[in-house]
Amino acid sequence: MEITVYLAGQIHDDWRRELKEKAQEKGLPIHFTGPMENHSRSDNIGEEILGEQPNKIAKDEAASQMNNLRTRVLLNRSDVVLALFGEEYRQWNSAMDAGAAIALNKPLILVRPEKLHHALKELSEKAQVTVETPEQALQALSYIFETE
Amino acid sequence: MEITVYLAGQIHDDWRRELKEKAQEKGLPIHFTGPMENHSRSDNIGEEILGEQPNKIAKDEAASQMNNLRTRVLLNRSDVVLALFGEEYRQWNSAMDAGAAIALNKPLILVRPEKLHHALKELSEKAQVTVETPEQALQALSYIFETE
Amino acid sequence: MEITVYLAGQIHDDWRRELKEKAQEKGLPIHFTGPMENHSRSDNIGEEILGEQPNKIAKDEAASQMNNLRTRVLLNRSDVVLALFGEEYRQWNSAMDAGAAIALNKPLILVRPEKLHHALKELSEKAQVTVETPEQALQALSYIFETE
Amino acid sequence: MEITVYLAGQIHDDWRRELKEKAQEKGLPIHFTGPMENHSRSDNIGEEILGEQPNKIAKDEAASQMNNLRTRVLLNRSDVVLALFGEEYRQWNSAMDAGAAIALNKPLILVRPEKLHHALKELSEKAQVTVETPEQALQALSYIFETE
Amino acid sequence: MEITVYLAGQIHDDWRRELKEKAQEKGLPIHFTGPMENHSRSDNIGEEILGEQPNKIAKDEAASQMNNLRTRVLLNRSDVVLALFGEEYRQWNSAMDAGAAIALNKPLILVRPEKLHHALKELSEKAQVTVETPEQALQALSYIFETE
Amino acid sequence: MEITVYLAGQIHDDWRRELKEKAQEKGLPIHFTGPMENHSRSDNIGEEILGEQPNKIAKDEAASQMNNLRTRVLLNRSDVVLALFGEEYRQWNSAMDAGAAIALNKPLILVRPEKLHHALKELSEKAQVTVETPEQALQALSYIFETE
Amino acid sequence: MEITVYLAGQIHDDWRRELKEKAQEKGLPIHFTGPMENHSRSDNIGEEILGEQPNKIAKDEAASQMNNLRTRVLLNRSDVVLALFGEEYRQWNSAMDAGAAIALNKPLILVRPEKLHHALKELSEKAQVTVETPEQALQALSYIFETE
Amino acid sequence: MEITVYLAGQIHDDWRRELKEKAQEKGLPIHFTGPMENHSRSDNIGEEILGEQPNKIAKDEAASQMNNLRTRVLLNRSDVVLALFGEEYRQWNSAMDAGAAIALNKPLILVRPEKLHHALKELSEKAQVTVETPEQALQALSYIFETE
Repeated sequence: MEITVYLAGQIHDDWRRELKEKAQEKGLPIHFTGPMENHSRSDNIGEEILGEQPNKIAKDEAASQMNNLRTRVLLNRSDVVLALFGEEYRQWNSAMDAGAAIALNKPLILVRPEKLHHALKELSEKAQVTVETPEQALQALSYIFETE
Repeated sequence: MEITVYLAGQIHDDWRRELKEKAQEKGLPIHFTGPMENHSRSDNIGEEILGEQPNKIAKDEAASQMNNLRTRVLLNRSDVVLALFGEEYRQWNSAMDAGAAIALNKPLILVRPEKLHHALKELSEKAQVTVETPEQALQALSYIFETE
Repeated sequence: MEITVYLAGQIHDDWRRELKEKAQEKGLPIHFTGPMENHSRSDNIGEEILGEQPNKIAKDEAASQMNNLRTRVLLNRSDVVLALFGEEYRQWNSAMDAGAAIALNKPLILVRPEKLHHALKELSEKAQVTVETPEQALQALSYIFETE
Repeated sequence: MEITVYLAGQIHDDWRRELKEKAQEKGLPIHFTGPMENHSRSDNIGEEILGEQPNKIAKDEAASQMNNLRTRVLLNRSDVVLALFGEEYRQWNSAMDAGAAIALNKPLILVRPEKLHHALKELSEKAQVTVETPEQALQALSYIFETE
Repeated sequence: MEITVYLAGQIHDDWRRELKEKAQEKGLPIHFTGPMENHSRSDNIGEEILGEQPNKIAKDEAASQMNNLRTRVLLNRSDVVLALFGEEYRQWNSAMDAGAAIALNKPLILVRPEKLHHALKELSEKAQVTVETPEQALQALSYIFETE
Repeated sequence: MEITVYLAGQIHDDWRRELKEKAQEKGLPIHFTGPMENHSRSDNIGEEILGEQPNKIAKDEAASQMNNLRTRVLLNRSDVVLALFGEEYRQWNSAMDAGAAIALNKPLILVRPEKLHHALKELSEKAQVTVETPEQALQALSYIFETE
Repeated sequence: MEITVYLAGQIHDDWRRELKEKAQEKGLPIHFTGPMENHSRSDNIGEEILGEQPNKIAKDEAASQMNNLRTRVLLNRSDVVLALFGEEYRQWNSAMDAGAAIALNKPLILVRPEKLHHALKELSEKAQVTVETPEQALQALSYIFETE
Repeated sequence: MEITVYLAGQIHDDWRRELKEKAQEKGLPIHFTGPMENHSRSDNIGEEILGEQPNKIAKDEAASQMNNLRTRVLLNRSDVVLALFGEEYRQWNSAMDAGAAIALNKPLILVRPEKLHHALKELSEKAQVTVETPEQALQALSYIFETE
């Protein structure tokens, strides 16, 4: 049995690559998916496909259509959603993805530094698992397959 | 036919009361629900019911249980979810509620100042309606009932 | 027991009013809902609420948000969806509403002139009832409540 | 991960074959399905299986049963539905399929020439992505798998 | 709290009226619904609404559309489905309604003479309650409301 | 793409084996499942597993548990349900399976001799496809995969 | 807005009556439902309706049919499920009801003495709210309606 | 066709290993999953991942998060749930898992010694199959695949 985990959260550093490498080292049967991590491409994908848009709002809407298509297809195919929150970004996308995961009965793993606990307390209470680092999340995922 | 609208969003000013008053002036058959708006009570409700907790995290978790109970019951009973975002707060709760509304097939009305458009673009694209003020949201709700 | 019937279809003549009057004459416990029937208001509702839009496409998108909000709320609350097709309009809205009704397990009554049968054959096959006039549709609705 | 895309829309020209060839050239892990594209066979399949029918309506109903069986099985198995609209046909089937896709929570990609925007505005607003050509739709699908 | 019970089963004798009278005598808060009990009207309702049909099969199909509309609307609104089977009729309708009730998570009460047990054993095993007489079914329904 | 078809219906002759052989000859990617076709084993499976039961009703209930386990697992995994009705048996099981298939949104193919049309008219109206022979059903299934 | 709360748990003392009285004193718009609290009637209801059964197991099965009918109807109609666990009984019914509530997306309030925490830890983690007394549960329910 | 069976129940003896061995001997296409069977690891997994917790309740909650993540992922992927009850443990987990399985429309096989029948009668009545030993459960599972 292989499971699929969607990695929601900020796309400003390399945390997904590190997570995947560690999962591979452990030999875990987990397939990871996630959003486009190239930030400028994610912002420009609407114009890349549809051509130049009249204004910034139209450009954003076009990009969001494409990004949301990706997220919906991948979220529908996932067994678990992992959402990482950090201190620097508003990450409303991640909170929305987390809310969708909960409503779709996909277990949610919330990863956040302890100091964000108060701001994320309702989300944490709804998550299946709340941890502080991606490594801890990986341990929780690994535990699904362990037998002793 | 009466509809029920859950008002998600920040609880730091009086926007819900104003909205309800305007709806009443217009004679709209809308029943509004929402979170506890007394901020300190919302933070302390866990200890109010369960007694003093060992630390801040436990206090937050206890409060979140109660706040989420309220939200779930009221969200399940609503026909529409209205989520207001402002510039000052992170409002991850609101984004999570918005995500849940979308996944539960409840139409979402997103209210946000234009300058938050970029940060909220994916959420906006998923909302049924995006407007800039609560008054505009009320017009959209009123339109459901108008006949000419 | 009262039932709610959503009346999908063209908004260019008076068929909904006639249907409601006949239902009232028969004393049927049916509550009818439907789209905004004032065509120009339906086209302009986006700008009415959000202000002038930069171009026609943006104007149409704004109007569609409002019209679809109305349809979703009312469709979710209906027991039956009646969709009327005529020869003059493309009525893709109606076909989309019909498809949504079927997928949501709401029985669909299709009303269409016989000569549209071929073009509508797949839709007819999925409808619960296919008739040629609104009066026949009303007879089918009335039959739900009759006891002898 | 491979995804399955159902190609709804008119069957009067070769757009599906072109789309599949371009997907293959790009090496995309997409499996495409769709309706019977041989128009006369699609119209006659009822009589082919059940024998001659008493009249045209019965012939159409028999054919629709078979065409809808195909569509339902394939739509239930798809991750995304792509619906192409052109200027020449009424294509109520496509609109109905689009409505079903939306209600079943399958992301919809709407492909239509810009001049059909007004007639399709409500459908466009409900689609996950709206583009003007099959090539653009393919770019959107490709984006689901791209990593940089 | 009032509950609604759909009474599926043969329409050749007066069992529904008797059941309703007994429920009324007991003052039970139960609203009963069911199929058209006038057998010839049930067979002719298609032609009554649509006019004469070319042959018997078309006549039957037209009638079934109307009867199934009624059943679907009423079944969707029911809390419990009661299905009565007797020795004289094939009653495939009733078995189909029973299967639909089970799949829709509506509790099913099966009423059948003991000697039909073998033929109905799989259906009985899926029913929530199996009894031999409508009076026993009414006792089971009454028990939902009793407090001592 | 392979599809799975559950073959509901009587187990008194060899129709399933013939159907499978014909499907194999045609090279169709269809996996068929169905009930236990050894009639006496199907009746005795409860006692075979649980030991002798006190009376016939208990024996029947034990057997039904096992038969329904099998049906539920296989029905949940199927894309299409085919139900065959003949003149000799009451086949309430088949009608119940058909009702479950419809409610679970699995397309139903009804196979019945023409003379059973009246007794099965409501079931026929709900089926996706109604044919008279297993061969015709197989043609309808084959059509799902054909491309010209 | 009135909500309905199903009170699962042991039926050996008077906790439900006390809870209802307190809710009434507070004027809360809550309708409470629950199982038959007369223990011997709950054990005998099968024989009361169906007549004497051949052995204890058959008697138990008959009673369970009736008790589960009641529970399913009332659970389907509830907004919240409250499950009380005490030290003296195994209460597998209550745990099963709790599991059903969670799976049906009904918020669960778990009431248990602190010393049962370890045995109930997985259930507690899934509950929306965990408290130690019915009074605390009532405070949590009351909080849903409070506005300051 | 391979099916997946989740083995809920106590983790104090070796019953799962024995069951798997017997299934393997019989060559059954069944993939078994289940909880962590190392009892102390199951109790400590929260602290293993999150570090030492302030008190026993926090330790239990942390462990439950991880155990419930595992159960949810595996239960969502299963075709059948088997729940074993014995005389020595309270096993509220198992009853909760059983309730979830029923609500999620996964057939449940209940395994319990006859003397627990009374305490488990409502659960037994909801199970698809009730047997006394794991061997009998395996026979029932094997029967799904047998053809004569």
